Amino acid sequence: MFELLKTDPRCKARLGRLTTAHGTIDTPVFMPVGTQGSVKALDPRELLEMGTQIILGNTYHLSIRPGVDIIRAAGGLHQFINWPHPILTDSGGFQVFSLAKIRKIKAHGVEFRSHLDGSLLFLGPKEAMEIQRALGSDVAMAFDDCPPHSSAPRDLRAAVERTIRWAGECRQQPRAHGQLVFGIVQGGANAALREECARAIVGMEFDGYAIGGVSVGEAEAEIFKAIELTEPFLPAQLPRYAMGLGTPAQLVELVARGVDMFDCVLPTRVARNGTAFTKRGTVSVKAGFNKEDFRPIEEGCACFACRNFTRAYLRHLLNVNEILGLRMVSVHNSHLYLKLMEDMRANLARGTFGAFRREFLANYVPSQKVLSARATVER
Amino acid sequence: MFELLKTDPRCKARLGRLTTAHGTIDTPVFMPVGTQGSVKALDPRELLEMGTQIILGNTYHLSIRPGVDIIRAAGGLHQFINWPHPILTDSGGFQVFSLAKIRKIKAHGVEFRSHLDGSLLFLGPKEAMEIQRALGSDVAMAFDDCPPHSSAPRDLRAAVERTIRWAGECRQQPRAHGQLVFGIVQGGANAALREECARAIVGMEFDGYAIGGVSVGEAEAEIFKAIELTEPFLPAQLPRYAMGLGTPAQLVELVARGVDMFDCVLPTRVARNGTAFTKRGTVSVKAGFNKEDFRPIEEGCACFACRNFTRAYLRHLLNVNEILGLRMVSVHNSHLYLKLMEDMRANLARGTFGAFRREFLANYVPSQKVLSARATVER
Repeated sequence: MFELLKTDPRCKARLGRLTTAHGTIDTPVFMPVGTQGSVKALDPRELLEMGTQIILGNTYHLSIRPGVDIIRAAGGLHQFINWPHPILTDSGGFQVFSLAKIRKIKAHGVEFRSHLDGSLLFLGPKEAMEIQRALGSDVAMAFDDCPPHSSAPRDLRAAVERTIRWAGECRQQPRAHGQLVFGIVQGGANAALREECARAIVGMEFDGYAIGGVSVGEAEAEIFKAIELTEPFLPAQLPRYAMGLGTPAQLVELVARGVDMFDCVLPTRVARNGTAFTKRGTVSVKAGFNKEDFRPIEEGCACFACRNFTRAYLRHLLNVNEILGLRMVSVHNSHLYLKLMEDMRANLARGTFGAFRREFLANYVPSQKVLSARATVER
Repeated sequence: MFELLKTDPRCKARLGRLTTAHGTIDTPVFMPVGTQGSVKALDPRELLEMGTQIILGNTYHLSIRPGVDIIRAAGGLHQFINWPHPILTDSGGFQVFSLAKIRKIKAHGVEFRSHLDGSLLFLGPKEAMEIQRALGSDVAMAFDDCPPHSSAPRDLRAAVERTIRWAGECRQQPRAHGQLVFGIVQGGANAALREECARAIVGMEFDGYAIGGVSVGEAEAEIFKAIELTEPFLPAQLPRYAMGLGTPAQLVELVARGVDMFDCVLPTRVARNGTAFTKRGTVSVKAGFNKEDFRPIEEGCACFACRNFTRAYLRHLLNVNEILGLRMVSVHNSHLYLKLMEDMRANLARGTFGAFRREFLANYVPSQKVLSARATVER
């Protein structure tokens, strides 16, 4: 199922290959986020052209709209959205704890009111796995308790205990044909809790392991710490997924720390505000200095947007609210993320990952604006 | 420049070919509207795939944002928007009279305040032609006075006189290399005014003639009447353009009345509200009855949307405000308009236009909702 092809001799970066029911994925991989069954503003052709191997869907959102019955009637999520390639579905745990209102945490799940119409709903390990089975995703995620960054130690411990108990329940549920299930490790930035949670979840023998409870509002140093505290307890022979991360520079640092899979709404989210990622950091395409700049967003970039349009034109489109503007910045940003992963894979294969990492990080100037946007993003 | 290839023996429908600086256009032709330099929600590849031969740009909108200087610096509108195919630009007359605030009509143009920021601007024959020269469009339109549908006879006459005088001034202005200039005939539904205006404008020897002052809030019968009152006075050897029209059924009726060129915001405008055109009329893709309908919007349709997505999926996308939803309905609607013109051309070539017209109109059920939306559309 997962083949570990190579590990960098000087850091923990890994080259791998994950085989799923709908195709094989080269890792490290970035997974564009299609929360509601569409990667925002992009179509499947554009996703394939930029090298997308796998996309995300979301149990919470899809079960509210359009509802599982419709997707089941369509023949599953792949059919419904016309994406015959791998799909990973998040279990809805994160959304229940971050979006839903008036939660009541019970033994076997969470009672909550829909963020949409206030109707009373229940989601727990059994329900989340049942929905993901109906969606027919290639990789299903366990239903976890993802506490906020600011949680008291007692609440963090309770969340870990609940996450472990629910993971066990998820593990017992039937799955779709060929569906992989990943466990999720919680524990915040607490070393003992991370170790305890990782050991318990790994003991349940999932097909892969995710590090959750990151990207929930904490500083970058804490994100790295949570990953470093968890990774040593994850089996080398299985894929590791850092949920909801991150900026391009963070992806490089996290690959170096042994992570294989990533998802993040940043590339499409900031695109809709006119912010583009480049190898040197972010740039506001809407800014006045682009008024008569007839270069592409990033020189040398092979994405559809950079091959066809100038900064001046895209700035104009964004300023007059033409949809093509945010479409093209979404194309560029998503392409940059996917190309970055491709570059990391190529350098891992060639044994030059260390040099690539140094050079990339030397050139990339992180933007505080984007870093703080990330924390408040609705997933 | 214009070749009249064939005229239907039983009606006034014509098959033709218009040669411009950026390519040849087969007529009858529908021109997707790119008011602000982008056909709303679509990219140039999608436009080409659906058979777009020529698109529209707008003098008023483009001169306000991004401003002529930027487009001039880009090397013209074709370069700026990356559309190396024919472009027709409207003169801004319609917008000055319909969108701008606090108009003061003067001898050589109109003083008005920008609908955007209230700044004081002036647009007349000289300015409109100068801007269109800078834009470098293949077909420039004369600057006319387009009075509202409800105008008193005295105001209608004044508008016709002004339109004639301004057309003469437009005719004297220098043009971009290879640029064609079309005159516009006004006169509402008044037979004498239409004849007088047409004779005067035709006497100035433009490269083609537009019928303006239609699609300004009047009933369909009045639109047809205005066309019928004008067409006999237009030279057969030159292209005729009915501005701002219409529904699919109206396009068929207007081709039968001797019109060669059309533009209309309807296909993209109603798409953004989730309304799709079909050969049988319009349908609300968002409607509940599409919930589990896994057919394409229109069976047998070869557009990108119908080849890839179901009604159920598009309904979901529209309901959760995913951009891909309105993108795909825009693709479908624009494709239908272009395909309809292609079908009319093929039937004209085969000598079967009469039968095609009868069958199309027998199947097409016009929607009052769409007909009334048309009149209030911002162009």
